[in-house]
Amino acid sequence: MTSYPDALRDEVERYLADLRFPSAAEQTAGLEEAMRYSLLAGGKRIRPVLALATANAIGRDHRDFMPLAAALELIHTYSLIHDDLPAMDDDALRRGRPTCHVKFGEDVAILAGDGLYAEAFHHLLSKQQGEPRRILAAAAELAAATGVDGMVGGQYLDVAGVGDTPEELRQLHALKTGRLIGASVVCVLLLEGMGDEATGTWRRFAAELGVLFQIVDDILDVTGTDADLGKPQGSDQRLGKRTYVSQFGLDEARVLARECHGAARGSLRQAAPDGATDLEQITDFILTRTA
Amino acid sequence: MTSYPDALRDEVERYLADLRFPSAAEQTAGLEEAMRYSLLAGGKRIRPVLALATANAIGRDHRDFMPLAAALELIHTYSLIHDDLPAMDDDALRRGRPTCHVKFGEDVAILAGDGLYAEAFHHLLSKQQGEPRRILAAAAELAAATGVDGMVGGQYLDVAGVGDTPEELRQLHALKTGRLIGASVVCVLLLEGMGDEATGTWRRFAAELGVLFQIVDDILDVTGTDADLGKPQGSDQRLGKRTYVSQFGLDEARVLARECHGAARGSLRQAAPDGATDLEQITDFILTRTA
Repeated sequence: MTSYPDALRDEVERYLADLRFPSAAEQTAGLEEAMRYSLLAGGKRIRPVLALATANAIGRDHRDFMPLAAALELIHTYSLIHDDLPAMDDDALRRGRPTCHVKFGEDVAILAGDGLYAEAFHHLLSKQQGEPRRILAAAAELAAATGVDGMVGGQYLDVAGVGDTPEELRQLHALKTGRLIGASVVCVLLLEGMGDEATGTWRRFAAELGVLFQIVDDILDVTGTDADLGKPQGSDQRLGKRTYVSQFGLDEARVLARECHGAARGSLRQAAPDGATDLEQITDFILTRTA
Repeated sequence: MTSYPDALRDEVERYLADLRFPSAAEQTAGLEEAMRYSLLAGGKRIRPVLALATANAIGRDHRDFMPLAAALELIHTYSLIHDDLPAMDDDALRRGRPTCHVKFGEDVAILAGDGLYAEAFHHLLSKQQGEPRRILAAAAELAAATGVDGMVGGQYLDVAGVGDTPEELRQLHALKTGRLIGASVVCVLLLEGMGDEATGTWRRFAAELGVLFQIVDDILDVTGTDADLGKPQGSDQRLGKRTYVSQFGLDEARVLARECHGAARGSLRQAAPDGATDLEQITDFILTRTA
């Protein structure tokens, strides 16, 4: 098993566990419970860990980026809750536990997702330290990466059954998964005030990491075990989804994954010539993970 | 019929009609269509008009606040789409037309709402001019007003059946409706860099306007015609919702509405001693509207 920056993950975990979502009305505690049920279900916390590792790689203290990191995981959790809904993928299990709508009802699950998304922006905009102009740029990037030209647009392509050609499949996943993974790297650079030129190789690294993540996801849906995945294996097939495996076959998908991993490591060497252990570990982990 | 700042509404309408939500993938056009279907369904555009009228009332050019105004309406539209979903209020008609999920399917409607929320923040964060520190403050207020301590928290109280006591009912509506109406005023002041002290009477005005809006909404659900409302009358009753009418009876609700209107006009006089015609019109309109 490839190693993983577990110390960063533990910090993320503790930070997320401390987050509360209160309101002027006591009875919204039931909504907070549903939000925290899904938020604190574990997982590798790849997006926030990626952000913190990027901060370290450019010589900054990762602890200064915790609000951004938390916002990324809140948004990722919101997307999982909405993707699992009966009208979407209709998944009953996630990380080995009942999905949010199974546990709390569909209405509460929709609102838990909506609430996590709002609280992500609220947390980032009110807690992240730095030059206001840079925080604005990072928050705008996060909004773009999760809108029509990002996560939500990609999820639309998915439910609309787009993905017949390799190019369509690539676009779908670049939007659905790649943009938020990319934003996990890019928002850190924007908070540091880096311009487009300086972020170029970093953006390439982030994009390749996003594609790699998705190819491996598709492979695992076919080869993983229910216990490892925490949900029934084969759900892509059940839903008739276009995947890298359905498109290219398992062997070719594995070749693509290795190529993509090599390209990501290559871009990372260019972006961080002096090395970036945590990011190298994350890149390797995404290739070799089993869940 | 009370007059309304129709010139401001027309400007909002034109601005919204010009908004596009493209992506790197052509096929997200179907998602954009669903978003624009709901966004361009008409209505009084109370929240954006309120923001623009507030700008005029404090001696600013309202045209400088169009990105904020648009963000408010995108968010309001998103909330209507999600509220109408089968798992929520299950409404088939809105403004005389099929609701988003009836027209485009439940999956697309969920994503259209999610997309509108993302694009609202993206638009505000990337298009609103002003001091970055002030834009951050306004965007943070908008996120808070639409999160657990705001719109989404209020909607949760609604689906959870909270509202047995007058105090609970007041809290529910303060969150569900009042916070976004309040933000329509307050975000303009934050963009102007006004501190808490200067915004005090404005916040009171906005809060009273929000309560007034909801009381009249509850009255109209009982007394309005299907044609005026653009949806079947009596849907609150059908869903067994606690409303100002179910709580206090129709006559007493009308008394409350008039009291609330008087309080709002009183706060407005304090906030804008030299008068604020547009805001006075909006306040009167909210009391006397028939839809």
